[in-house]
Amino acid sequence: KIRGERLWDSLMETAQIGGTPDGGIRRLTLSEEDARVRAWFQAAVAAAGMTLSHDLFGNMFAVRPGKNNALPPIAMGSHLDTQPTGGKFDGVLGVLAGLEVIRTLNDAGLETEAPLMVVNWTNEEGSRFSPAMLGSGGFAGVYSVDQVNGRRDSEGISFGDALEAIGWRGDLPPKGQPIGAMFELHIEQGPILEAEGKDIGIVTGVQGLRWYEAVFEGRAAHTGSTPMALRKNALLPAADLIRAVDAIAHAHAPDAVATVGHVSVSPNSNNVIPGEVRLTVDMRHPKDAVLAAMDAELHSAFARILAGSGVSGGLTPVSDVAAVAFDPDCIRAVRDAAERSGLSAREIVSGAGHDAVHIARLAPTTMIFVPSAGGLSHNPAESTAFEECAAGAQVLLDAVLGYDRR
Amino acid sequence: KIRGERLWDSLMETAQIGGTPDGGIRRLTLSEEDARVRAWFQAAVAAAGMTLSHDLFGNMFAVRPGKNNALPPIAMGSHLDTQPTGGKFDGVLGVLAGLEVIRTLNDAGLETEAPLMVVNWTNEEGSRFSPAMLGSGGFAGVYSVDQVNGRRDSEGISFGDALEAIGWRGDLPPKGQPIGAMFELHIEQGPILEAEGKDIGIVTGVQGLRWYEAVFEGRAAHTGSTPMALRKNALLPAADLIRAVDAIAHAHAPDAVATVGHVSVSPNSNNVIPGEVRLTVDMRHPKDAVLAAMDAELHSAFARILAGSGVSGGLTPVSDVAAVAFDPDCIRAVRDAAERSGLSAREIVSGAGHDAVHIARLAPTTMIFVPSAGGLSHNPAESTAFEECAAGAQVLLDAVLGYDRR
Ligand SMILES: NC(=O)NCCC(=O)O
Ligand SMILES: NC(=O)NCCC(=O)O
Repeated sequence: KIRGERLWDSLMETAQIGGTPDGGIRRLTLSEEDARVRAWFQAAVAAAGMTLSHDLFGNMFAVRPGKNNALPPIAMGSHLDTQPTGGKFDGVLGVLAGLEVIRTLNDAGLETEAPLMVVNWTNEEGSRFSPAMLGSGGFAGVYSVDQVNGRRDSEGISFGDALEAIGWRGDLPPKGQPIGAMFELHIEQGPILEAEGKDIGIVTGVQGLRWYEAVFEGRAAHTGSTPMALRKNALLPAADLIRAVDAIAHAHAPDAVATVGHVSVSPNSNNVIPGEVRLTVDMRHPKDAVLAAMDAELHSAFARILAGSGVSGGLTPVSDVAAVAFDPDCIRAVRDAAERSGLSAREIVSGAGHDAVHIARLAPTTMIFVPSAGGLSHNPAESTAFEECAAGAQVLLDAVLGYDRR
Repeated sequence: KIRGERLWDSLMETAQIGGTPDGGIRRLTLSEEDARVRAWFQAAVAAAGMTLSHDLFGNMFAVRPGKNNALPPIAMGSHLDTQPTGGKFDGVLGVLAGLEVIRTLNDAGLETEAPLMVVNWTNEEGSRFSPAMLGSGGFAGVYSVDQVNGRRDSEGISFGDALEAIGWRGDLPPKGQPIGAMFELHIEQGPILEAEGKDIGIVTGVQGLRWYEAVFEGRAAHTGSTPMALRKNALLPAADLIRAVDAIAHAHAPDAVATVGHVSVSPNSNNVIPGEVRLTVDMRHPKDAVLAAMDAELHSAFARILAGSGVSGGLTPVSDVAAVAFDPDCIRAVRDAAERSGLSAREIVSGAGHDAVHIARLAPTTMIFVPSAGGLSHNPAESTAFEECAAGAQVLLDAVLGYDRR
């Protein structure tokens, strides 16, 4: 049985690293705060007797030997990076619960058949470097090494340089660490478990996700002395696109979601007509066919808006991650574990993307969800209760042991 | 006769201070670059034998004695700060042409009746600290000392602290420097003079101007796992407001202009529903009554958008500068000067705001415009030809001498 207080203490201790006054965390990937939480994790897995390696993308793999070390390890884990104004549970819970599982087995002197592994995937959030799930995507071969290294943040710093700067670029190539299976515990980040009073979400899959970057290029000019008829205002088509993206989601209600989350206006001065506007578009749907239709609608809306705007522009796909169905054996291990602990559970499809999506290409994979208060995530007020975290870690332990015994 | 090359050399020399690779200038008010251009100006007026003082707002007054120093000085000048991506002429031309007038009179050994003065007004642009024309507004008593000092930039730094930091806070109180009259040479920043092939704009007044800050507060949440029906997306009403502001200008065509120039989205992450959006609104019209109508339309559009949005928000006026008619005697001095030089000229109302607007409350004031290529300003590509700058400086000299002889 895992020790809930120890898990909670680790959550609250690491929450100090990049902790913000509002109770959230700002720990952008490959930042100085990320370096500090990596050092914390390195010390913690060493203290738990594990062996740590890391790959070309800075993904960290901590291994606890099993009886049969010829078997590929069963992995647990998630990510330690956060949103710019993130909460205390998104990602961190999955890594620290993996650590808690190891600590519990150490306390009990219990040896598994296969080795166990706790993983911290780099840049899951995709806020500093888009797309999201970049470290696990690079590991799984979805993105090439050069693609990953070449991604740039809003200040023009590349992923490769930022990784080098914090000293976590390793030698392991993509797929260089064998994985027998992966179980990722995560907060739901949505309202369903709470609304239905369930303790555990048995995650059967993840909806598809497409990201785009849109740019409009007009002409910066004086707001006072430039007549309306002579303007090339890049912000007007941007406003239209924001509305069009929202309308596309509503046209595929209730399952579709579509959002413009990032807008940058240049030169962004009160008395200058916007010369350039950049936006990101995020669209998702559980069915790939519907997502493809939404993609087509986005392209035609963009073309229509651009044509009527008098400015130039472009729409570039940034990532396209198909919907994923998780492994039936892994799912069964989670269902059995929840039942054994007497927890209420339901099957659920993840609205958020996760590293498990990419790892599912390489190995049997699934996820375990615990409730998010008010369905809120990517927000400092993100909240999952002590007992809920502990219940999730217990199911993680039991699912891993169940899968290992198989 | 002024020396066009000397004026041009000074323009190009100061353009290095904050100069950008695209030929523009980034010299935000009270920045390190502003401190450097102030030091340049200080040295230049000292070399021209002038006496420099500065006031509580960092406005700089360089005086050349006249025959009768009991008379208040006739002022020339404008501002040395620029937009974040500004050009080489906006503001700078008016200050350096004033300096060129003094240098010309020194060369000719000519003494005026009244003393002459060259002024550099602080924070005319209003990009770093809104509103625009803040230094001249403080000097004229339009804003209190505390109001000016309390304005904050987007990083939270106050005007007062920034002024202190560059060492240019003086003792002179508002209206502490007597002014007999003011002539401000400036680029038109609009397309009219060029389109009509005129050398000189005899500026009869400046249109009215109102600035506002709008904020929408929704709830930051995950873009993938938050159903459309549960969202509070602050960016959707912001998009509607951008469109509404544009529509208000079109409803009062052809003279009205209205623009959202600045947008800041928080947390501005690809996969976070925008939790807070701040925008600025800039509306102008030559007739105060029309501008008042536009103000009412903005408030009702804002209320309507807010009511339908499910988010909270507010609309705050930041500045309200009524339309100004310049002094007939000053205007006549400019018209006579243009005629004497054989330059083509037309009367014109300024679309942009200028320090002259506030100084017109204290003393007879007017402005002289020279053409802007393509009507473009607040853009690194802003361009006024050598001969046009020289012609403007010549008219400035002649207008000041004509007014002084009166
Ligand atoms: N789980 C999570 O928040 N992942 C970030 C990637 C996404 O936007 O879904
Ligand atoms: N002349 C000029 O660009 N002034 C800035 C204030 C304004 O926006 O009109």
